[in-house]
Amino acid sequence: MDPRNRPQKGFRASRLAEQSALEERFQALPSAESFKRHLIALTSEPHIAGTPANDRVGERIAAAMAAAGLAVETYPYDVLLSDPEGEGSVALVTPIRLPLNAQEYMLEDDPYSSHPALGPGWVAYSGSGDVTAELVYANYGRREDFERLVELGIDLSGKIVIARYGGNFRGYKAKYAEAAGAVGLIIYSDPKDCGYTQGPTYPEGTNMPEHGLQRGSLLTVSHTGDPLTPTQPALPLDDPAHVERMAIEDVGLPEIPVMPLPYGSASQILSRFQGDPVPDGWQGGLPFSYRLQGGEQLTVRLRVQQERQMRRITNVVGTIEGSELSDEWIILGCHYDAWGFGTADPNSGTAMLLCLCDALGQILAEGWRPRRTIKVAHWDGEEYGIIGSAEWTAQFAQELSPRVVAYINADMAATGDRFGASASPSLKQAIIDATQDVQRADDASSLFDGWMEDAGQPERPPIGNLGGGSDHVGFSSHLGIPATQLGLSSPCPIYHSNFDNLYWYERFADASYACGPTLARVDGLLTLRLAQADLLPYDLPSYAVDLRTHLETLSERAQARDLEASFDGLTVLAERIEAAAARWVAARDAALEGDTLTSDAATSLNQALIALERPLVHAEGLQESAWARSLWACEDPFSGYAAWMLPGLRYEIETRSPDGLERWKGVYARALTTLAERIEGLVEEIEAQ
Amino acid sequence: MDPRNRPQKGFRASRLAEQSALEERFQALPSAESFKRHLIALTSEPHIAGTPANDRVGERIAAAMAAAGLAVETYPYDVLLSDPEGEGSVALVTPIRLPLNAQEYMLEDDPYSSHPALGPGWVAYSGSGDVTAELVYANYGRREDFERLVELGIDLSGKIVIARYGGNFRGYKAKYAEAAGAVGLIIYSDPKDCGYTQGPTYPEGTNMPEHGLQRGSLLTVSHTGDPLTPTQPALPLDDPAHVERMAIEDVGLPEIPVMPLPYGSASQILSRFQGDPVPDGWQGGLPFSYRLQGGEQLTVRLRVQQERQMRRITNVVGTIEGSELSDEWIILGCHYDAWGFGTADPNSGTAMLLCLCDALGQILAEGWRPRRTIKVAHWDGEEYGIIGSAEWTAQFAQELSPRVVAYINADMAATGDRFGASASPSLKQAIIDATQDVQRADDASSLFDGWMEDAGQPERPPIGNLGGGSDHVGFSSHLGIPATQLGLSSPCPIYHSNFDNLYWYERFADASYACGPTLARVDGLLTLRLAQADLLPYDLPSYAVDLRTHLETLSERAQARDLEASFDGLTVLAERIEAAAARWVAARDAALEGDTLTSDAATSLNQALIALERPLVHAEGLQESAWARSLWACEDPFSGYAAWMLPGLRYEIETRSPDGLERWKGVYARALTTLAERIEGLVEEIEAQ
Repeated sequence: MDPRNRPQKGFRASRLAEQSALEERFQALPSAESFKRHLIALTSEPHIAGTPANDRVGERIAAAMAAAGLAVETYPYDVLLSDPEGEGSVALVTPIRLPLNAQEYMLEDDPYSSHPALGPGWVAYSGSGDVTAELVYANYGRREDFERLVELGIDLSGKIVIARYGGNFRGYKAKYAEAAGAVGLIIYSDPKDCGYTQGPTYPEGTNMPEHGLQRGSLLTVSHTGDPLTPTQPALPLDDPAHVERMAIEDVGLPEIPVMPLPYGSASQILSRFQGDPVPDGWQGGLPFSYRLQGGEQLTVRLRVQQERQMRRITNVVGTIEGSELSDEWIILGCHYDAWGFGTADPNSGTAMLLCLCDALGQILAEGWRPRRTIKVAHWDGEEYGIIGSAEWTAQFAQELSPRVVAYINADMAATGDRFGASASPSLKQAIIDATQDVQRADDASSLFDGWMEDAGQPERPPIGNLGGGSDHVGFSSHLGIPATQLGLSSPCPIYHSNFDNLYWYERFADASYACGPTLARVDGLLTLRLAQADLLPYDLPSYAVDLRTHLETLSERAQARDLEASFDGLTVLAERIEAAAARWVAARDAALEGDTLTSDAATSLNQALIALERPLVHAEGLQESAWARSLWACEDPFSGYAAWMLPGLRYEIETRSPDGLERWKGVYARALTTLAERIEGLVEEIEAQ
Repeated sequence: MDPRNRPQKGFRASRLAEQSALEERFQALPSAESFKRHLIALTSEPHIAGTPANDRVGERIAAAMAAAGLAVETYPYDVLLSDPEGEGSVALVTPIRLPLNAQEYMLEDDPYSSHPALGPGWVAYSGSGDVTAELVYANYGRREDFERLVELGIDLSGKIVIARYGGNFRGYKAKYAEAAGAVGLIIYSDPKDCGYTQGPTYPEGTNMPEHGLQRGSLLTVSHTGDPLTPTQPALPLDDPAHVERMAIEDVGLPEIPVMPLPYGSASQILSRFQGDPVPDGWQGGLPFSYRLQGGEQLTVRLRVQQERQMRRITNVVGTIEGSELSDEWIILGCHYDAWGFGTADPNSGTAMLLCLCDALGQILAEGWRPRRTIKVAHWDGEEYGIIGSAEWTAQFAQELSPRVVAYINADMAATGDRFGASASPSLKQAIIDATQDVQRADDASSLFDGWMEDAGQPERPPIGNLGGGSDHVGFSSHLGIPATQLGLSSPCPIYHSNFDNLYWYERFADASYACGPTLARVDGLLTLRLAQADLLPYDLPSYAVDLRTHLETLSERAQARDLEASFDGLTVLAERIEAAAARWVAARDAALEGDTLTSDAATSLNQALIALERPLVHAEGLQESAWARSLWACEDPFSGYAAWMLPGLRYEIETRSPDGLERWKGVYARALTTLAERIEGLVEEIEAQ
């Protein structure tokens, strides 16, 4: 079905004109000037979580939201971070002594690159240590890469592993290296993945130069958030209600030292390798044949001295209280802490949200009030491991679960002109609708048209699955709340480097600062529709479509893993959901068009809609994580970032456990049956009107 | 006069045969095996003063001397050293970031080069700091080099100075750089002075390779010894008699960070200079035109974190008590602390002394006893600033002054086959005599013949003036005791690098270990003659000859400095001394040959001889140092190491002070008059026999 033929936005016919006027007024308001002003103010200095510089950014955000008319509250937590003032170094010891550079150059072109607060390369939660050892190259340091090394008979014990960025969350590179007995890990940015192989390098081009490197966190504990408070909010230690912290040594943080390097420095190591040629696909972009072992003649000293410290982080949340349905919340969010200036990551998203706040503030000033409550959350400590948002969702789980209509994430969201979205099925149609009604910055066509054009006009708009890696996870994976990450972006190969700054942004992301207000219109429309709708415009048919797709994918994956697996029973449930969802859409649209709903009925239906997906929350949690409870999606527990769909089933397939798979099929059957029953209940309820 | 026509050794005719037999027996004893065994045992690990490794070396020395039959005593002091475990680094910051290597490579050829206790380059008493600045090249960093920079209008304030090793003691480079307003100093070994310009580099040749660097101390306070106890011995803090220490901040230690670099690293800095061409004589051996200023585009970060700490050092002194004249002492000495293994510097001297102890031990075992007391001192903490010996001479000044016949220093003394000597005039003839009676290791000719051959057959054997830089200064400069530094050496361009080890020694110094026993014969003969002589064989004529030479040199220097200066009055005194000395020689030789001296007369004359030079000790001290009191010689107070002769006069010439010169001529006239009178008194006394 052409999605443009489903423009239903959840409004009674009698309220469509009012909503249209509101949307028209709103769309005129987000401005490049506002976005630019906020982005410049937010990213004038590097601001790592837990530092005074980041506190200043938080205060700036609070002031900006207050000025826009939002009621601002702050939520402090004391969490375990790493001291960014630690020390790390990598040096060849033999055959020659050669200390290696681990910090970006100061560039004449880029005035930000010489900011005195910029520091050398490091990764948070590295172990501390001082090791000198031979080396092994481990490609991307993925689970399969380490398995391949085992197959090849290469012993990693006592070695320093050197792996390139990409393919997984860096924390897994460290986890697997340590598990394999390595004494240290160097992670470098290979030119093939993000450097000159991709095109001219910074500052001539946008790609990573030989001296640029990626910072980041190594946190891979089995829950998300503060490492020391797995199931509890990490309330400040001076708060009488604070929970006792785990002992740091019980957390399972990395013990080996880990350092990131730019490829100009990694090249000094890899070019001296004398071992076996690498397998297919392992060759990177440096100008020599990659080899697996460094050999005896090559030793490197890797030294990291990094303290783990309790530090204060603070979420800043602005609220526009709903006038009618104040207990139904639409939450937008983005973290504000960064590894450097954070102009792209994350604060293009922050500035977009503040630009949106300015626009909402204007219509508030003009007398409007939303029906539902709108919250704009600026999370802290995301870079260390999605800490601020996870603590907040832990602290307010009981309130959030029955209240939150949707969570809209904006991490790193406004860096270019290509629209992208990942979302829970229930939000897909509303996202599509919003993009159809927002104009592209550079021509008169809709964002939707550009999006479909960029994607090669696929049958369905290419909305991705929501995996891990940002602040939606507390909502989506832990609480089972519909969530989305929306963005207008361009490639950012200088990700987590000191070059993610306003000079890079103006030169390679968006010199006109147009993407910020454009995305603010999308987020704003989505928010205004969710906030004002008579019936929440959840996309129930997509659940069925996606479910079937995911079951098919799992079947293929099981086949590839040589595992007997039939999902026929679940496919039947998908069909049942599909049928019910179609009936729901028809009945809902009829009710809205005919304007036949009582207010009480709408309230009851909306409450049921909000509760609809909660059966997909598995109280005991998933196999790899008691914290990740959504049966629908989670992040790949073996690599981070990427989404695993129907993860309870996926896990048993990946671990090739037929018994487990049967057990989990039962879990899914029960949950999906409940979901089907609930949709059927909704249909009955609306049809009874 | 041909010195070989003055073979008088101070013995009565009747004792010559006994002495000859003793010398013959002694000369058969020093062995390469003993020297080699000691050198290997002493230099098996790096042993910096104040560390457990150096304590182990001290214990080994004590055991070796005890085994040889000497009575061993130890003299501990608690002194202010620097923690060798500090940190230092140099890195380009702009135009590119480039951390620079500051440690020698591990070489396959040289097994010592990979010893785990070897550390990176550093200089003791560096200031701690972290500075990033532009650069100026200051040639050798001598006083005249800094003066030249001022003339050229080059402002050093806020700059990092880079200077090459050579031309002065490195501490003065730091002192002048700091005084000129520099914020840091890099000292590097230029290939022209010690590297490839001189010949093949280590390990192919003996010259400094691109990764070799010179460690050392920066101490230039106005006294010698522990910085915190200028006039007192630094007795251990747990000794009830210990003196109160000065506050560290009152000492005048360097405040700026200072780091040594190898030329491979310095080249990365100097090759990027963009300023004015250097003056004549400032060009080094790196393959580009040297320039004065780095320019704005070039900045370097220099970081030193180095703690100053109270640490324990321990002198180890062995004694062979004199059988007849136990209060007349001949002291031999060498320090034992080193910056690394110390095979050449200093322990080739230490091993030579232990080889000599073994030989003396053998003749002791055969029943011999010396007439006078022989002491063999192994000093600690010399590398930091001649601390161990200076504390000992401070502690025992009252006992040493009337007792010590001569101090014979052996710092770094046995590294090759070229004989060299610096000495007080009174020891010159005895040194010459000893070299005439010792055979060269590789042929049957005398060491004297080789020495004269190497020197191009000069009129006088080329015995240098004794300046600063080693453990003789407490004796010569502070107490005015006749002293000498004797050695058999080869060039040591890897001085104070990690390559001063047994591999270098066997390859480039002396594979046969013959120089140790050969020098032990020279030191031993000199010692046995001084210890056994009926009349101390002081070389009084040389005082007159040297005095005249020094006065002539001062005249020339005054002229060069445009200073009116006549030394006629002092020249007259030189003539008076010459005449008296000639009479003394004649009378002494007659008395000895005629065997007419009574034992009491000899005792009285010897006491007078020991006291003879004490008038040359100026109680108030010299202009630049109250500690340096000898009017005869001191180290150049503007550059270290080099000798200043008649330094009270020299200082006034250098500072162009006619009034001061007149005043000091008076001081010298009085002292030299007393010296002349005392020699005349000796002559009268002996002629009265």
